[in-house]
Amino acid sequence: MNIIEIINKKKDKLELSREELEYAFMGYLNDEIESYQMSSLLMAIVLNGMTDEETINLTDIFINSGDTLDLSNIEGIKVDKHSTGGIGDKTTLIVAPIVASLGVKICKMSGRGLGYTGGTIDKLESIPGFNVSLTEEEMINQVNRIGIAITGQTKNLAPLDKKIYALRDVTGTVESIPLIASSIMSKKIASGADKIIIDIKVGNGALIKNIEDAHHLSYLMQIIGNRYGREVRTLTTNMNTPLGKAVGNSLEVVEAISILRGKGKNSYLYKVCLELAANMVSMAKGISIEESKLLVENSIDTGLAYSKFLEFVSAQGGNLLDTKVSSNVLAIKSTKKGTIKSINALKVGMLSQSLGAGKEKMDDQIDYGVGVVLNKQEGDEVWVGDTLCTLYIGDKKDYLDPYECFEIE
Amino acid sequence: MNIIEIINKKKDKLELSREELEYAFMGYLNDEIESYQMSSLLMAIVLNGMTDEETINLTDIFINSGDTLDLSNIEGIKVDKHSTGGIGDKTTLIVAPIVASLGVKICKMSGRGLGYTGGTIDKLESIPGFNVSLTEEEMINQVNRIGIAITGQTKNLAPLDKKIYALRDVTGTVESIPLIASSIMSKKIASGADKIIIDIKVGNGALIKNIEDAHHLSYLMQIIGNRYGREVRTLTTNMNTPLGKAVGNSLEVVEAISILRGKGKNSYLYKVCLELAANMVSMAKGISIEESKLLVENSIDTGLAYSKFLEFVSAQGGNLLDTKVSSNVLAIKSTKKGTIKSINALKVGMLSQSLGAGKEKMDDQIDYGVGVVLNKQEGDEVWVGDTLCTLYIGDKKDYLDPYECFEIE
Repeated sequence: MNIIEIINKKKDKLELSREELEYAFMGYLNDEIESYQMSSLLMAIVLNGMTDEETINLTDIFINSGDTLDLSNIEGIKVDKHSTGGIGDKTTLIVAPIVASLGVKICKMSGRGLGYTGGTIDKLESIPGFNVSLTEEEMINQVNRIGIAITGQTKNLAPLDKKIYALRDVTGTVESIPLIASSIMSKKIASGADKIIIDIKVGNGALIKNIEDAHHLSYLMQIIGNRYGREVRTLTTNMNTPLGKAVGNSLEVVEAISILRGKGKNSYLYKVCLELAANMVSMAKGISIEESKLLVENSIDTGLAYSKFLEFVSAQGGNLLDTKVSSNVLAIKSTKKGTIKSINALKVGMLSQSLGAGKEKMDDQIDYGVGVVLNKQEGDEVWVGDTLCTLYIGDKKDYLDPYECFEIE
Repeated sequence: MNIIEIINKKKDKLELSREELEYAFMGYLNDEIESYQMSSLLMAIVLNGMTDEETINLTDIFINSGDTLDLSNIEGIKVDKHSTGGIGDKTTLIVAPIVASLGVKICKMSGRGLGYTGGTIDKLESIPGFNVSLTEEEMINQVNRIGIAITGQTKNLAPLDKKIYALRDVTGTVESIPLIASSIMSKKIASGADKIIIDIKVGNGALIKNIEDAHHLSYLMQIIGNRYGREVRTLTTNMNTPLGKAVGNSLEVVEAISILRGKGKNSYLYKVCLELAANMVSMAKGISIEESKLLVENSIDTGLAYSKFLEFVSAQGGNLLDTKVSSNVLAIKSTKKGTIKSINALKVGMLSQSLGAGKEKMDDQIDYGVGVVLNKQEGDEVWVGDTLCTLYIGDKKDYLDPYECFEIE
């Protein structure tokens, strides 16, 4: 086999065999294939696509490149959740304790922020003392004890995916539905859960820009899941506008607590969380979505969900009372009268990152207390002087222009 | 500007501006853009194409990346010739002296062999003593004295094209008509000739596989030439089968001499040389192709063309009498009776390379005396025991199977 012939085959829209994919991708992991050859192949894949069989094979190669997690020491159905990434997405902080409070096991490895989108691990780490580095044994013991654990990646899950993702990030080859499906599903399969819910974010603030791509991604994730005997469900949710009001680590923890305490039931954030949690419960218990929704709402209303959240944070050493948001607050006032036509998710994410909530370079430090809280929503009428949003400011003073986030007409 | 945005733009089939092309390609030459980013962009160009404006701009960037040759010290019209590469293509050795014998100035920089295709410089170097490294001054003086000089690249012509070509060669991004057009034309424009004839080889032994691509390439080369005030003509010639009988450096010199001496006038090789030479004379003198063909045939028949060849070889120090072909000769006999349906150019080229006529690795030595002479042509009837071809063998004994070159039915 020869890497140039493999690249040419994909360039000519021919299907690559399992052996050819393995030769190219494992060769890249083992430094036998050059990065400039892999990036050329990746661009050919981005433009010419992959067949279902290729996508399933590539996922399997990703999985086999590293460790897999054995969750058989945890009794009952283990359910995992993944979001394709968005601005202000704190759903894991809300959904995981709800589901755990209903007796469904949550044993989850989460990631850190990537680009403008925050990561669950960073958000949890904004709670002083919270330990995001559980060992596998600690994680399994905790799930057996209280039904929930969320930790960073301790094992070497799908290292090939990690290396490929880093290359895609700098070669304009991120936007490929089959590659996105393989990347996400390889980590989810390797993480060992029985049932998986995927929240596919669609919109300007998301990797997936349109509903057709979301449907294709959903289809691929389900056939990959089926191949491994894992039930996969997907939800398609809006990411043209940030999810919820808060963007920034501690601020999002505060908003998550408010939802868990039954506030904001009319919000889109609550609606998304309800759907996600209900699907997870439905899969785990084999009951209908409608029944599951009643259980979820009941868990919130009785305070069970919030108690589970407190138990979970405490079990991992976190001290909620010490969680701080910045006290340097600036209200951004509208300079005109009109209706808010849009709040651009991507721009809010960039604004929050520029305040220090996300890293711009690998070795940047995250400022957990900074971020943005939206005081108005899309469709709201505003008068001159109304507060559009509130900035929680840290050391970085050269943040982006917050007015750029709002379109008022 | 940002390289990832530029890659994404081309991935999304948008036109790149001159500034964007310059940022990406000059950045690569200056080691500011990584090779894995350039190869990703190149694959996007291969699959999504380039507009005429992009192709012209990229050619100009290639030209400006290095030196250009000033031929104004040579009186009269300077004509150049280029072939897109084929097996057994010794036309330059034949056409250049013919044209020079008719008073048209030939001041030519040629290349070495690439892959399975031989290079004019390697063929000339098979003549003992022949100097392929003239200085610019020596070259211009020789053209002013005898009307012809052929040398290797002395100046730093289009170094960016060279660097890009090396990357394309190992990333499956060779087959792109706009990239091929830019690559060839940048060197031709930089070489300074007024009129240029391009021999576009089409077939299994050539870079260009079909006639539509040949026509597209022809069109692009002419609009690029026009932009610089250079007249460009193209010929489309067959490269499914080797051009002529001999493949291998000294063997091709011998065949070129035989054509220059008026032998083989019924051959396709002669026909191609006649067309090429006539077009060059026609462009230089502003006369018709028919008139030019008469001049060309006359030059051969009177021995003027051959005399010019001898004068040219002698001027560059070559000693034709010392030119050697291998004396270790093996006749390959037909094992069946039938008609030769095809002689595969690519396979003959690979056979010749495996005998040592071309390099397999950068630091291989060329064995000038080895190669293949075809004793039969396509359409010939053969009997068992008839000689199909003759191998001229050197030190390499693990050459390819010569029977693979012939399809007999």
